[in-house]
Amino acid sequence: MTREELFQQIKRKRSFLCVGLDTDIRKIPTHLLDEEDPVFEFNKQIIDATKDLCVAYKPNIAFYESMGLKGWESLQKTLDYIPKEIFTIADAKRGDIGNTSSMYARVFFEEMDFNSVTVSPYMGSDSIKPFLDFEGKWVIVLALTSNIGGLDFQMIEDKNGIPLYQKVLSIVQDWGENIMFVVGATRAEMLREVRSLAPESFLLVPGVGTQGGNLEEVAENGLNLQCGLLVNSSRGIIYASSDESFAYEARRKAIDLQQQMELQLIKKGLI
Amino acid sequence: MTREELFQQIKRKRSFLCVGLDTDIRKIPTHLLDEEDPVFEFNKQIIDATKDLCVAYKPNIAFYESMGLKGWESLQKTLDYIPKEIFTIADAKRGDIGNTSSMYARVFFEEMDFNSVTVSPYMGSDSIKPFLDFEGKWVIVLALTSNIGGLDFQMIEDKNGIPLYQKVLSIVQDWGENIMFVVGATRAEMLREVRSLAPESFLLVPGVGTQGGNLEEVAENGLNLQCGLLVNSSRGIIYASSDESFAYEARRKAIDLQQQMELQLIKKGLI
Repeated sequence: MTREELFQQIKRKRSFLCVGLDTDIRKIPTHLLDEEDPVFEFNKQIIDATKDLCVAYKPNIAFYESMGLKGWESLQKTLDYIPKEIFTIADAKRGDIGNTSSMYARVFFEEMDFNSVTVSPYMGSDSIKPFLDFEGKWVIVLALTSNIGGLDFQMIEDKNGIPLYQKVLSIVQDWGENIMFVVGATRAEMLREVRSLAPESFLLVPGVGTQGGNLEEVAENGLNLQCGLLVNSSRGIIYASSDESFAYEARRKAIDLQQQMELQLIKKGLI
Repeated sequence: MTREELFQQIKRKRSFLCVGLDTDIRKIPTHLLDEEDPVFEFNKQIIDATKDLCVAYKPNIAFYESMGLKGWESLQKTLDYIPKEIFTIADAKRGDIGNTSSMYARVFFEEMDFNSVTVSPYMGSDSIKPFLDFEGKWVIVLALTSNIGGLDFQMIEDKNGIPLYQKVLSIVQDWGENIMFVVGATRAEMLREVRSLAPESFLLVPGVGTQGGNLEEVAENGLNLQCGLLVNSSRGIIYASSDESFAYEARRKAIDLQQQMELQLIKKGLI
């Protein structure tokens, strides 16, 4: 998918919402457990309920991998079910030396046909570049993560006072065209700095809570002329209810976020 | 497996060799392709040929994952075939937020019963600590990797001139007992520094070539009183020959490395 195609979708849907499919069989409504593939059935209903409101889906690969062979089947079926115009993110956080990264790229881009995959920058250029050899595919590099441990190394400053996550942003964006960055929303005040360092990059922002929380702040600091944001919500949407109304409640939460996003897109003059 | 059990095995086999099972179906001898599971058949013969010479096996998970469901079956069969006293490493380089790391830990430690898994430090403490909740299991944290891209971020110095990989070593070892580190052998001169920062830790050293290359240098700078080293060789052993003699040639290469290691262990007075 091209940047322009993604932006067109954003304008059409008046949304930059990404729905995280972190589907845990221990958390889905119990009435689904009788289905042949409960995880896929759950995802299918979530997709049906949200596909007009979001522009991206992000399955967290760990949740599927932890279920073994059955999990990979559920993941493949889910991916096949997502409408082709919607951007898909394999949240895998891979990162290994060249040969191995090429293998991971083949898995996610060729065998499974994801549009993008998340990777860790720690091993540097030759761990990320193999993902850029696939035309129309994207790599999404961890820069600033929203977990507590994100502070341990990402904030370490170099001699010039530049924290590691900013070095990652500056250095990695020169490695290719189709690169996005993960930037945690819990530190929305840092988004302005991120945006000045990577003015054109799309940023995948996790950590925006069920209530939208700091969405306004994220939008104000993060939007660029082609939107440049994908804001993810996982549990806040997919586990909005734990009974038979789960898909309906997921839709309500997604509508709430989409409406907030529409307001921000209008405010920025993008729609 | 405890540190003491690993050390006892090292003394018994007079070796600290780890064999990397980076098994690529496109590279294994063609006569194996008629087997029902060529990857497992290859691994089985490599294990039979080397199990008295090495103390650890390290399957690179990407090579199995890239084969889909069949790959995961080959991996499970391989793991089941490895004698229980040998240390097993899932070379997965995972690293995600707490919940997700817990899931990966369950996959590799409970479902598959690996002794250890490699993880990336970028996301910090809560991405690594979930792996430490499993008794007798180990986490092996990337510190200094042997690829060219390893220089991009791992060597960035903080205000006090301390490079990132050294921060990782100093900070991470306080997070728990059963922690090892990946330290690339292409920079053996740095091993002395690593050893002074982490005097008791086991170091997993990849990048020692087929010929042993700088093994002597690695041993001189890296050995501690409980050995403290696992030196890995993958392609140099498993692809020593591409015809029917592959297992025999793999054994020859492994013997060569084991003999060099024995010499170093004697020199250090450990056996």
